[in-house]
Amino acid sequence: MDTLLEQLETPVPVVDLDRLAFNLDRMAAYATLHGLRLRPHVKTHKAPRIAAEQLRLGAVGLTCATMREAEVMADVCDDLLLAYPPVGAARLERLMRLPASVRVAVAVDDPAVLEALALAARLGDRTVRVYAEADVGMRRVGAASPERVVALAEQVRRTPGLAFEGVLFYPGHIRQVVDAQGPALAGLAERVAALRDALERAGFPAPVVSGGSTPAAWRMHELPGVTEVRPGTYVYNDRTTALLGACDWDDCALTVLATVVSTAVPGQAVVDAGTKALGREPADAGGEGYGALLDHPEVVVSRMSEEHGILDLSRTDWRPRLGDQVRIVPNHVCIVVHLFDEIVGVRGRAVETRWPVLARGRAPVVATAPEWSGPRAV
Amino acid sequence: MDTLLEQLETPVPVVDLDRLAFNLDRMAAYATLHGLRLRPHVKTHKAPRIAAEQLRLGAVGLTCATMREAEVMADVCDDLLLAYPPVGAARLERLMRLPASVRVAVAVDDPAVLEALALAARLGDRTVRVYAEADVGMRRVGAASPERVVALAEQVRRTPGLAFEGVLFYPGHIRQVVDAQGPALAGLAERVAALRDALERAGFPAPVVSGGSTPAAWRMHELPGVTEVRPGTYVYNDRTTALLGACDWDDCALTVLATVVSTAVPGQAVVDAGTKALGREPADAGGEGYGALLDHPEVVVSRMSEEHGILDLSRTDWRPRLGDQVRIVPNHVCIVVHLFDEIVGVRGRAVETRWPVLARGRAPVVATAPEWSGPRAV
Repeated sequence: MDTLLEQLETPVPVVDLDRLAFNLDRMAAYATLHGLRLRPHVKTHKAPRIAAEQLRLGAVGLTCATMREAEVMADVCDDLLLAYPPVGAARLERLMRLPASVRVAVAVDDPAVLEALALAARLGDRTVRVYAEADVGMRRVGAASPERVVALAEQVRRTPGLAFEGVLFYPGHIRQVVDAQGPALAGLAERVAALRDALERAGFPAPVVSGGSTPAAWRMHELPGVTEVRPGTYVYNDRTTALLGACDWDDCALTVLATVVSTAVPGQAVVDAGTKALGREPADAGGEGYGALLDHPEVVVSRMSEEHGILDLSRTDWRPRLGDQVRIVPNHVCIVVHLFDEIVGVRGRAVETRWPVLARGRAPVVATAPEWSGPRAV
Repeated sequence: MDTLLEQLETPVPVVDLDRLAFNLDRMAAYATLHGLRLRPHVKTHKAPRIAAEQLRLGAVGLTCATMREAEVMADVCDDLLLAYPPVGAARLERLMRLPASVRVAVAVDDPAVLEALALAARLGDRTVRVYAEADVGMRRVGAASPERVVALAEQVRRTPGLAFEGVLFYPGHIRQVVDAQGPALAGLAERVAALRDALERAGFPAPVVSGGSTPAAWRMHELPGVTEVRPGTYVYNDRTTALLGACDWDDCALTVLATVVSTAVPGQAVVDAGTKALGREPADAGGEGYGALLDHPEVVVSRMSEEHGILDLSRTDWRPRLGDQVRIVPNHVCIVVHLFDEIVGVRGRAVETRWPVLARGRAPVVATAPEWSGPRAV
């Protein structure tokens, strides 16, 4: 007999398996249609099971932000990009201890990082592929000019143990890219063209040019020279993605199932999903609150404590009762996944499967790092 | 040979063991001095090791918000309060399956919850103690008036399986309570007196009156009738607690150790602690950003991505270098603890111990809930 949604203990993240499959297919089809390499970012799902499906659908490899993600994904993928500065001895050591069969690439924005990386690569007896990371306006990480990107490429070319792969950027600041009239896209196209031209003039023909977050990914084919996209959020989507117009509301595959635990204070209902289940991420694109109900999008989580979410009922006639379950579309799904150890997969209201968020957390995999050597807590 | 702070992999939460001991002692002494029962909330540390120390120092029992917390803490404590509405079959079942040796109390704000709870108590063959929860102005959960609190108490009195314990409130809205001139404290005193008087008139003499979050706890002795406090944050404290004046900066025991991973963008440094390590909690009391450096409190984390924290260097001459480590005092420490699986304990710069955040997550303890019955992910 099927377990039904209503029987689940809350709060729990629930994924609609049909929507997940649709989202996976659509991005794979987009990349194929436009001849773009798809290298999905695993930060959103942190689950080898979904990564394997992305690879089956044609992804050339995976993108990771943490060494935990890379270690876990090495079980299902032999082509990993750490899109994060490989700074610090522990990070470098874990990177070198990835299985020898894995083709490892990293994003670098600093000459000093390349030096340490090259030493580690030679001691680790492997060749590390390097993407020079460029800042295209987000002002987070990345070399500030095409000249600096070229300097990084040239340093890679003359350094044993390293091999130049291409240039990488993260256009996370460009949210209006989904708007066909957005001038930001043209500005981005100019920056990308300048990066590619500078590299070609310096003797790096046809570099990989890697871009694209989920909202921007759908427009990457309009940027001449981009060859690879690294979207993450598209597997589940979220309220922000929908508000930006980069997916439909019905494409939001992950919701947080929650239970109404109090209606004692008039004008509101309290559910058992607070900041420890939803995070406190604001909605982009003008949305209020910290999430909205799948079946009542006008009802938002207007306030939160750690284990309480306050549903504002001022814009609805719907009145939930104590014990009712609701499904909350979170503002930022990547944060929600990171807060849970397990995801439940449903088809309709039937619980079909579950999977662990295996790459959550920070722990070194036992095989690749020694057990803690200090005294243990009693 | 000692492991040193500098050798830790980042990001990682680090607790100064001397500060932790001082914080534990001080709250225990405050409660003893004023004859208040101390029932610390475990949501902040989620660690049986620290709970055991709280009990050794005189705590009468523990307060929990989730069933995971209650199950884990049952190993070290036989007197647990679930300060959360026990709504939903799974929550009630897990509550009843706590060891029979544990004296169980719950906070309730609704007559319907009492009915379900009483049925569970009788089927579970145990007596459940009930605190009637009152809203004293936070407008989250809690009965709205003394009359409703009395009605709950009377319902408990006539219901087999339940026993009335007292009245409970959470004054989380009162932040200025640390200000001796704050009128909010007088208002709270009136509300608490009204609750207690109403209960005594209805034949409930000398009820337990349970209040107090960390900033408010230090003033609870000024509220006539309060007999119990339930602070959580005081074990570690955080930037908000310090900004509110409820602790000194030097009382912040937990910091997130992070590494500078990029200085490519001028005017800032990027560390490897973002929203997945710090949360996105705003600072109360007018503080900017999402955390501040322990050794440079004028430097705040001004922007974040999931794995990036941007340090704003505009108010300091200090210029961190790539690979430097920093210690970030988070705005809200309870969220940080919930994001990690393990805490490292240091004395000075020497790593002395580590402990798991055992009550993190939601999983039922295997012994008290059946293994999932649906099909497993392949």
